[in-house]
Amino acid sequence: MTGAECLLETLVANRINVCFMNPGTSEMHFVAGLDRVSGFRGVLCLYEGVCSGAADGYARIEGGPAAILLHLGPGLGNALSNLHNARKARSPVVCIVGEHATGHLKYDAPLTSDITSLARTVSHGIRTVESSAELGASVSETIAAALTPPGQIATLIVPADFSWLSSGPPGEIVPRLSRTMPPLENIRDAANVLRSGKDGAAIILGGSSTCPRGLNAVGRLAAATGVRVFMDRTAPRLASGRGCYQAPKVPYFPEDARAAFADVTHMILVEAEAPVSFFRYPNTPSSPVPETCMISVLAAKDEDGAGALEAVAEECGAREWLARPQESPVAPSHGPLTLSTVGLALAALLPESAIVSDEMVSSGAVVLPHLTCARAHDQLPITGGSIGQGLPVAVGAAIACPERKVVALEADGSAMYSLQALWTMAREGLNVLTVILANRRYRILDIEMKRTGAPSVGKRANDMMDLGRPDLDFVSLSRGLGVPATRATTLEEFTCQFRAAIGEPGPHLIEAVL
Amino acid sequence: MTGAECLLETLVANRINVCFMNPGTSEMHFVAGLDRVSGFRGVLCLYEGVCSGAADGYARIEGGPAAILLHLGPGLGNALSNLHNARKARSPVVCIVGEHATGHLKYDAPLTSDITSLARTVSHGIRTVESSAELGASVSETIAAALTPPGQIATLIVPADFSWLSSGPPGEIVPRLSRTMPPLENIRDAANVLRSGKDGAAIILGGSSTCPRGLNAVGRLAAATGVRVFMDRTAPRLASGRGCYQAPKVPYFPEDARAAFADVTHMILVEAEAPVSFFRYPNTPSSPVPETCMISVLAAKDEDGAGALEAVAEECGAREWLARPQESPVAPSHGPLTLSTVGLALAALLPESAIVSDEMVSSGAVVLPHLTCARAHDQLPITGGSIGQGLPVAVGAAIACPERKVVALEADGSAMYSLQALWTMAREGLNVLTVILANRRYRILDIEMKRTGAPSVGKRANDMMDLGRPDLDFVSLSRGLGVPATRATTLEEFTCQFRAAIGEPGPHLIEAVL
Repeated sequence: MTGAECLLETLVANRINVCFMNPGTSEMHFVAGLDRVSGFRGVLCLYEGVCSGAADGYARIEGGPAAILLHLGPGLGNALSNLHNARKARSPVVCIVGEHATGHLKYDAPLTSDITSLARTVSHGIRTVESSAELGASVSETIAAALTPPGQIATLIVPADFSWLSSGPPGEIVPRLSRTMPPLENIRDAANVLRSGKDGAAIILGGSSTCPRGLNAVGRLAAATGVRVFMDRTAPRLASGRGCYQAPKVPYFPEDARAAFADVTHMILVEAEAPVSFFRYPNTPSSPVPETCMISVLAAKDEDGAGALEAVAEECGAREWLARPQESPVAPSHGPLTLSTVGLALAALLPESAIVSDEMVSSGAVVLPHLTCARAHDQLPITGGSIGQGLPVAVGAAIACPERKVVALEADGSAMYSLQALWTMAREGLNVLTVILANRRYRILDIEMKRTGAPSVGKRANDMMDLGRPDLDFVSLSRGLGVPATRATTLEEFTCQFRAAIGEPGPHLIEAVL
Repeated sequence: MTGAECLLETLVANRINVCFMNPGTSEMHFVAGLDRVSGFRGVLCLYEGVCSGAADGYARIEGGPAAILLHLGPGLGNALSNLHNARKARSPVVCIVGEHATGHLKYDAPLTSDITSLARTVSHGIRTVESSAELGASVSETIAAALTPPGQIATLIVPADFSWLSSGPPGEIVPRLSRTMPPLENIRDAANVLRSGKDGAAIILGGSSTCPRGLNAVGRLAAATGVRVFMDRTAPRLASGRGCYQAPKVPYFPEDARAAFADVTHMILVEAEAPVSFFRYPNTPSSPVPETCMISVLAAKDEDGAGALEAVAEECGAREWLARPQESPVAPSHGPLTLSTVGLALAALLPESAIVSDEMVSSGAVVLPHLTCARAHDQLPITGGSIGQGLPVAVGAAIACPERKVVALEADGSAMYSLQALWTMAREGLNVLTVILANRRYRILDIEMKRTGAPSVGKRANDMMDLGRPDLDFVSLSRGLGVPATRATTLEEFTCQFRAAIGEPGPHLIEAVL
């Protein structure tokens, strides 16, 4: 068997069955192998940032990794931004990068670049295949690195000759390790804090702990002890909607976060780091946590946060919590189309078990609170702050779970970094309804401009934040990429279009003009 | 003045007056400064790869550098692919990357990444601003690095606090160095080889030597001595068309290159490296140059290759060459729309002094030879082999030289990596006519698949090279980005649309369905 076939066989043996890819010459044997190895699906993306974002979305829903296949250093360069987000989401990703044939590197051919240095900025494990005999083992080691809890980006650099030469046998099957429970003393310490009766305790939920089990346990703790609960902004997947314990996210802006934590005297971290401001501004500190606040770790990022919360709840005798009774919201039928009415409509119309890929940026603050009273769903928020994640993540989520409806809530500015994802939705017939919230600004920059203390904004500065002149026509763009699309300029149009699209299989896009 | 204003003042003082930008929070003071510093133009791009490609195109036409402004590591990541091409083109670029405020880095906020390691893969000079007092000097040092012949990518990392704090004075004006002539013995040695009467000599032209002056001198040498001449595939700007000395490029595929060089006994390099195969294949070596061939350098990459050729021509007494008389081609009016007829039409209709941005990939081999009999024009070929360059380079060329018509000849697959460039063409009213050669395949991969010795291509492998299902609709995409567009499915439609669009100012796109 060729090296490429060995690579594919090792992936399949390890239940890695999907590869988001944008191949080039050095990856041709891998591509040819798709017809020679069964149980493996190649998904073509027209730009590498779609590959990496899709692998992130896939991992967040499936739990295990997808592979991505990239062409040399520039291909990896295009994928870096969404690999950055995947790293912050702690998503396992097997990143395969083709390299020039070994003897060719010294000639410094035009596409030669330092792939290892690029990979090192996002990847925990980096291996370069160094012999045909060891190829299978290298693949297995890469998979093991990706699977290491809590999940990592692992990169395998494959010189072209090791793809076309005969290889040794496929690599071993890597055991999938479960997260372990944190030490018992962590449980006891946390329980002691919560039982002490002081009202300054807060829990920060991150990583995998924002699942229904974790939220249920923390809901019981909140009911029993009054502890305040916040969700870390980099948590990769949030259970939300009616019947779900609803904790606010750590506020984005440092003043709001400082106010929220002002009287917190003890912060308990569950698969989370202590909160930190996204940016530093001239007049705010980096940390919103009071200096006198005690910080303790209940579960480290590679441990079982939900299990730990259940153990603490047990220890505290926190047996139940009652969800606030919530009536099913009714979609508003008339009125202006605003972020608030979009939120109300989504709350009413989001189907049970929907997956929401959220890259609303500045619009999220208004829309997201409405979703807490929608039917139960999962949210996949932006994790690393690098723009262009939302549509690719929706692609990956829809591949991982074709029977659930994926709703991508996307800002217009951010959509333009990886719009190519729509074509893959069309090619694969993915069950994704994309809503573009078109305010025709980089609105977040309007806000940040004021916050950074920049002087008054003149015409030239304004031009750098204005997405008009010309307006982006997302209906035309979407159709150009093969995804049916409609434009909503009134609330009535929006609810009507959303209701129709949510009931149809396959992709659709609604441009909501705000 | 703020640090951002100091930065801008130093750029303007150094005649760097254009910045292609996609800013974020850490760059807000730079953006605000656009209204406070006169003589500086910010050009908004919706994706960072457009910024870096545009700066490359700008430098190739203007000669001097543009600046680009990027947001943190992920912004630089998105720009890397076209910075790779710019590096191979030896284009000077001043790459400004915003960084978190200095005190904020240790908190590992979500967008923190290793900017320096990323920059090192493409950049010759990297500086991080370390004090307000020295900011101006750091900017000048970065400009000096960019201007170092033959031209380099130079990166300045600017922590946000140094943008908002008061700075020291603007940096100095950096002298612009001319290329120097190579040592006299290089001239004599080359002249001796050419005068020796052996017919195995070949000249490889790269860098700046493919300008009219260099081509004229080499034309005289070829006429006088019979030397064969080839153009390096990474030469950034080629004079072409009627009246121009026409040298073939070094062939892309190694068999063709080996055949071309088979009886070359002495190769003279002018601002070029010895030819090397783009990729290594199972049955071809990396170098197409015969092992017994002598290689000598007439002009190093930072020297004046055109001047050196003129000196050698003088030394050889090569006084003139006669351009082969060429009649003005006539545009074909009827027939099928093929690469060949597109080439014929372009040869007839390309206006005098047009700038052709060439990213035709597999289609170039058929179309480009036709352009040698078009009116005199400049070609900006792909240099580093990283796909997604053509449309951004066209943006930069059109900003550098608004009075010349830019024609972007673009493959459909490659267009999809940086299609956002069209929006900047519309926003800035750029004089760019884009022709998409839509064969609805990654056709180059069809060819490469066979060459790499991969086994027969099955359905799954074919899917990874097929851009159909759904077809990309470039007319719809272009209109969605604000650029008027038409589709040509017959030769008559193509010539009619091209003729109409070439006479109108502002951007237009023609999708030529092949």
